[in-house]
Amino acid sequence: MRKCYFDHVAVNPLHPEVLDAMMPYLKEDFGNPLSVYDLGMSARNAIEEARGKLASLVNAKPPTIVFTASGAEANNFAVRGIALAKQSRGKHIMVSKVEHHSILNAARFLEKSGFVVTYLPVDKYGTVEPGVVKSSITDETTLISITHASSEIGTIEPIKEIARIAKERDIVLHADGVATTGNIPVDVKELGVDLLSMAAHQFGGPKGAGALYIREGLRIVPLIYGGIQEGGRRAGTENVPAIVGMGRAAEIAKNKLNSKMAYCKELRDRVIGGILKMPKVYLTGHPENRLPHHASFVVEFIEGEAMLLMLSMKGIYAASGSACSSKALKSSPVLLSIGVPTALAQGSIVFSLGEDNAREDIDYLLAEFPLIINRLREMSPFAKGWGEGSEGEKCFTG
Amino acid sequence: MRKCYFDHVAVNPLHPEVLDAMMPYLKEDFGNPLSVYDLGMSARNAIEEARGKLASLVNAKPPTIVFTASGAEANNFAVRGIALAKQSRGKHIMVSKVEHHSILNAARFLEKSGFVVTYLPVDKYGTVEPGVVKSSITDETTLISITHASSEIGTIEPIKEIARIAKERDIVLHADGVATTGNIPVDVKELGVDLLSMAAHQFGGPKGAGALYIREGLRIVPLIYGGIQEGGRRAGTENVPAIVGMGRAAEIAKNKLNSKMAYCKELRDRVIGGILKMPKVYLTGHPENRLPHHASFVVEFIEGEAMLLMLSMKGIYAASGSACSSKALKSSPVLLSIGVPTALAQGSIVFSLGEDNAREDIDYLLAEFPLIINRLREMSPFAKGWGEGSEGEKCFTG
Repeated sequence: MRKCYFDHVAVNPLHPEVLDAMMPYLKEDFGNPLSVYDLGMSARNAIEEARGKLASLVNAKPPTIVFTASGAEANNFAVRGIALAKQSRGKHIMVSKVEHHSILNAARFLEKSGFVVTYLPVDKYGTVEPGVVKSSITDETTLISITHASSEIGTIEPIKEIARIAKERDIVLHADGVATTGNIPVDVKELGVDLLSMAAHQFGGPKGAGALYIREGLRIVPLIYGGIQEGGRRAGTENVPAIVGMGRAAEIAKNKLNSKMAYCKELRDRVIGGILKMPKVYLTGHPENRLPHHASFVVEFIEGEAMLLMLSMKGIYAASGSACSSKALKSSPVLLSIGVPTALAQGSIVFSLGEDNAREDIDYLLAEFPLIINRLREMSPFAKGWGEGSEGEKCFTG
Repeated sequence: MRKCYFDHVAVNPLHPEVLDAMMPYLKEDFGNPLSVYDLGMSARNAIEEARGKLASLVNAKPPTIVFTASGAEANNFAVRGIALAKQSRGKHIMVSKVEHHSILNAARFLEKSGFVVTYLPVDKYGTVEPGVVKSSITDETTLISITHASSEIGTIEPIKEIARIAKERDIVLHADGVATTGNIPVDVKELGVDLLSMAAHQFGGPKGAGALYIREGLRIVPLIYGGIQEGGRRAGTENVPAIVGMGRAAEIAKNKLNSKMAYCKELRDRVIGGILKMPKVYLTGHPENRLPHHASFVVEFIEGEAMLLMLSMKGIYAASGSACSSKALKSSPVLLSIGVPTALAQGSIVFSLGEDNAREDIDYLLAEFPLIINRLREMSPFAKGWGEGSEGEKCFTG
């Protein structure tokens, strides 16, 4: 059976060249980067080389990059670290309703600690409107955290415009760049962000490696205290092999970004075009301004998990809702925030593409998926008589 | 040149069988454990198998183990997570003065957040006296955090006795088991601890994998918020290869614990016996009640870093002060806490042993180290005339 992996927002396969780069640090080069002897120095140099490569991918200076163990850690570090560092100035922060759980739940933690959080609404495409950001700012606002792109609905947010607004009011802007870094151009200077979260496994790097870009001169309270690693900003023995892998993955991603984007976009547009031919299936997120490797839908009368299981029996791997809650089986807050009714939000399906997908994988998906949908609808008590209505918009419009 | 790695408290080389166990998860088995399809299930099963193995090493039930990315993260999670969870009952916590930086600095962070922290003194061997713990408890005390053993001076702490005292007063006890787990018997039930931190690279596992044992039913506030990973207690895509490696390393460590301990102790006793033959060299930490793989000293008239560099030129790798601050070049607070004068504390040297050390490595060390000491003392302006005094105690006694 053909195997088609369409869940790259959950995790990318590790790039074979990345693994090659990691191997010496899983074997003979096992030193602790803090040790003064050659084994330590070798590990230290490897980390700094990786830092340079990752910095180059996002047009930052190497010392502004702090390695973490995940994108979730980077997000927690950013939101809580800045909120605490700035609390003498004010205790109001803003996040959007389409943020990842690691932002939303860190924000809820801050609420319990006496902070005020505004959860910014989004439009029907999941776009945060800069005007809404501007009008929500108070004198107490110290931080705005907006995702660069939603890994659930693919929409790319207007970070540049929001950065301009934040800068005017001297408010720190954090962008969650987990879904974008290594997948579309990310330039921290051009975007104008103060902080940016990244995760290696989103662009061919290993699990266990994330990073936070922190603008030069910006004070932040650490999340993990301890030794002097990462300039005292993040303690714990550095995961050298994973960091080396993240660096190598960044280098590869930078070199092939344009060709990868073009290829993924071609596949994505075929997926979207093909799937929207089915009745009562709607695109979620922005129709154009979306991640080039991301196609997300809601399918009426069907449960996401049923689709995932039927697809996997055909060797097709996809996600429903957010990758991090595929097993949580709750209605996605992101889908609810763009106005998808609760019942319809259950029918979420996300196909996220990568260079490892062949064009024939898309043919296979477009042949199999409609059969699965039809099969599931035949079994669904909610689907009775739906075919009699008329077809409206193909893009979900709230 | 012979290479002798005597810095196992900084990091262990990755056990080859551990790497073998990790490899499938760095290659074809790359799924996200939260995904519902077979690749996700395979990753999920691998994590649960690893959890079982690690739990078995410390005699815990698998669901009480939460994987983290490091021992430092586990320590921060424990101290801050319990302090916050219990703050409605009281805001006093106690840590010892021989704790790792990740405990001490997390405690300082809590102080800034309105908590009161008692830094418990230790005796000349670095032992926390249970009576001192008992008399320092107040009605506000919610947490005691004591290291199971210091990785800097090797002393094993009387956790069992402290646990009894904590239990009497219904106070949570956390033990930092980073230096002990996989190196000496660690049984959470026998020790009576509520929480225990662990790090894989201390017993042949990979960097990037740590864990916190959390007694069943004990509520803790997460350090990293986000998805539903680790039962909602620690978010972030699981580092599957590292977790699998930690599990396999735990299994190996459990099987060979007694032989490893006996072998390391034999080497250690030769190191201690041999090195104490030199004049003006003192053992730090407890002479008997210490880690079997740990020999630590202070050497008069000499700087630790100079020793490390001279040793490394002979292919001998060791540490000075704590592994996590070898490059920080500050006087070790642990050494100061046992009464070592500031100047003498600069002359700290730690040899930590492993099964990868041959008996001949010890011959080589004992031949080379005195030459290095003599050479350095010849260069030291402080060493003039020291040879004329008489020799006192060989163990540092405050």
